[in-house]
Amino acid sequence: MISVEEARARIVADLKPVAVEMVGLAQAYHRVLARPVISRLTVPPSDVSAMDGYAVRAVDTDSGKPLRLIGEAPAGHPFAGEVGPGEAVRIFTGSTIPNGADTVLIQENASVAADLVEPAASVRAGLHIRWKGQDIQAGDQVLPAGARLSVRDIGLAAAAGHPWLAVYRRPRIAILCTGDEIALPGEPLPAGGIANSNALMLSAFVTAHGGEPLVMPIARDAADEVAQAALAAKGADLLLTTGGASVGAYDLVRQGLSQQCFALDFWKIAMRPGKPLIFGRLGDLPVLGLPGNPVSAYVCAVLFLRSAIEVLSGLPPESPGFETVRLAAPMRANDVREDYVRAIIAQSADGEMQVTPLQVQDSGMLRALAGSNALIRRVPFSPAIEAGRYVEILRLDHS
Amino acid sequence: MISVEEARARIVADLKPVAVEMVGLAQAYHRVLARPVISRLTVPPSDVSAMDGYAVRAVDTDSGKPLRLIGEAPAGHPFAGEVGPGEAVRIFTGSTIPNGADTVLIQENASVAADLVEPAASVRAGLHIRWKGQDIQAGDQVLPAGARLSVRDIGLAAAAGHPWLAVYRRPRIAILCTGDEIALPGEPLPAGGIANSNALMLSAFVTAHGGEPLVMPIARDAADEVAQAALAAKGADLLLTTGGASVGAYDLVRQGLSQQCFALDFWKIAMRPGKPLIFGRLGDLPVLGLPGNPVSAYVCAVLFLRSAIEVLSGLPPESPGFETVRLAAPMRANDVREDYVRAIIAQSADGEMQVTPLQVQDSGMLRALAGSNALIRRVPFSPAIEAGRYVEILRLDHS
Repeated sequence: MISVEEARARIVADLKPVAVEMVGLAQAYHRVLARPVISRLTVPPSDVSAMDGYAVRAVDTDSGKPLRLIGEAPAGHPFAGEVGPGEAVRIFTGSTIPNGADTVLIQENASVAADLVEPAASVRAGLHIRWKGQDIQAGDQVLPAGARLSVRDIGLAAAAGHPWLAVYRRPRIAILCTGDEIALPGEPLPAGGIANSNALMLSAFVTAHGGEPLVMPIARDAADEVAQAALAAKGADLLLTTGGASVGAYDLVRQGLSQQCFALDFWKIAMRPGKPLIFGRLGDLPVLGLPGNPVSAYVCAVLFLRSAIEVLSGLPPESPGFETVRLAAPMRANDVREDYVRAIIAQSADGEMQVTPLQVQDSGMLRALAGSNALIRRVPFSPAIEAGRYVEILRLDHS
Repeated sequence: MISVEEARARIVADLKPVAVEMVGLAQAYHRVLARPVISRLTVPPSDVSAMDGYAVRAVDTDSGKPLRLIGEAPAGHPFAGEVGPGEAVRIFTGSTIPNGADTVLIQENASVAADLVEPAASVRAGLHIRWKGQDIQAGDQVLPAGARLSVRDIGLAAAAGHPWLAVYRRPRIAILCTGDEIALPGEPLPAGGIANSNALMLSAFVTAHGGEPLVMPIARDAADEVAQAALAAKGADLLLTTGGASVGAYDLVRQGLSQQCFALDFWKIAMRPGKPLIFGRLGDLPVLGLPGNPVSAYVCAVLFLRSAIEVLSGLPPESPGFETVRLAAPMRANDVREDYVRAIIAQSADGEMQVTPLQVQDSGMLRALAGSNALIRRVPFSPAIEAGRYVEILRLDHS
């Protein structure tokens, strides 16, 4: 058996980012930047006012004498002249500071009658001014390659003058579920059969992590059918299978793939739920085989498929982001396998987050999985632990 | 001035969920359920094996005598006969337990030669069996109306036999930015002008929170133009404006809207950044007016637009999810306004999350906003606070 960490490292080492495409900024949210964004603009483009008020000379506000209002400069309409001694120009948030002025008298501190502005306070030079280039200088790198674009990043790329961004295209993940006992939901069920939950769940997982899912027809338990389906997946960036990864006589994914010159890595991973995992290549096509059990398939998706999609998407290979959270109930010692315990994280009465493991951990319990929002990681041979101590968790959120 | 909480409560009280549509399960991820999901299936559909092995009678394993292998039952192919005394049937994970058998002898505990299965251990009745309906009973409500569908929920709805789900359609949010000084990125800039960052940033925000953005052409600073644009937004579920919400002579959103019989609520909100906010109705169309400053617009989107989209989407009105996190640097006392301080949250050396406020809090600093990943909330008149104490934060993540 190999460790979770080693399995992930091997998968990540074998994959490379997909090709780059240009997308409009309105489509770039959550995509991964393939090239850094260098600002084309300086922001602010000149010294501008941070408030509504009057552009004046600071020395003129010391005496409190009224100043002569010689014009106005709404944002987008810079004042063409110059503010001389004893003069003021009406300005607004974002207005360019006119030549000659060195400060802003805010309107709350000014009494205005006809064309006279009377300062109620003495103002020092440079007040309420955002300086040219204070936020961004043209030529600055504002976003690095390899960043997943947040809402704020989109705003920043816009401010830097970019209508298009170079991003990695969405990795295409072909999803092949196998088994004589399963049918997609709404299709007629075989005797003793169940509705397949993996195909749609993994499709949603791929979508949530920025990939493009391709749900293939379910393959029956026949090596030929698996082999045909695998051929049909050429052109995808990854073939994802579920089921058939164990050692039973009816576990045919490996048999089917081996008909197609599959360079196989078959691993037993020291983890629970989910022990058997297939990884390898069918020519150029990487193949990741998850367990058929939906809870195991989901946990393996969180630990392995997510990393695979991230590397294909151009993100730097990183381990999942574990957090340290207080435990609300005791947990037993565990064995050689790394446990991923379904759990609920919630804010306790004192405001701190705490995590409660679910009582039932049977890997057949998809409903309990759906009701959980975190996985507690217990590394191999973790000793028993009391409530109130700290454990490592992975948040599940919506994804 | 009104509080942040009161402003949000008023917005939420005025909005109603949009209409319901049926979507295929593959499109339902992250949508909001409009009707509960009642299971059409029982899972497991019968008593099934949790392991690969042999279906036997528990009493037959006590003697250790070999059992006669009378057949096999792969998953999806139930055994037609019955397991009699001294008999065994080969089964696999997910196989229906044949009549007559009451336990599973796992294959690791069986020696098999020809048609004889020799138990290496005595097995009690009921072991390694998942009972019929253990996870889901037909008729159970497995997902409530009003839930945002997670990846695991999609798997659960599939297991419950639903190919389609009733969800609220995505709320259509029309985005209208105003100002003579702005142009969309890549368009020619006016003198002293800047690239508009709000339209695309808010479009991404709407997408991230499950809405459908509609970016309108930028309106010049003329009441007529704002009025025309507002008319064009009819059919949206919410008109979102930026800029023009203040009291300056060039703040024309209110003037433009009032030409169209705008039922206006204009608020000064005791918060920083972002004080002025417009909320009201243009006939049936709710209007939310955010400040023009991108940092203020973003923070107001987090606090108000997000709640608006959630209510329109059919989610129950909830306050943002504040977490309590340790502060890494001291903060000063604040005044009558509730502060939302841009900050960085990260795991400290001891594994606990901690939050560091950014030094520069100028609301013109979009770049600093993009670099932050949390907002620290400081309620009005919060006293000064030392490093190591706990503060409330909102995570920003990608959204």
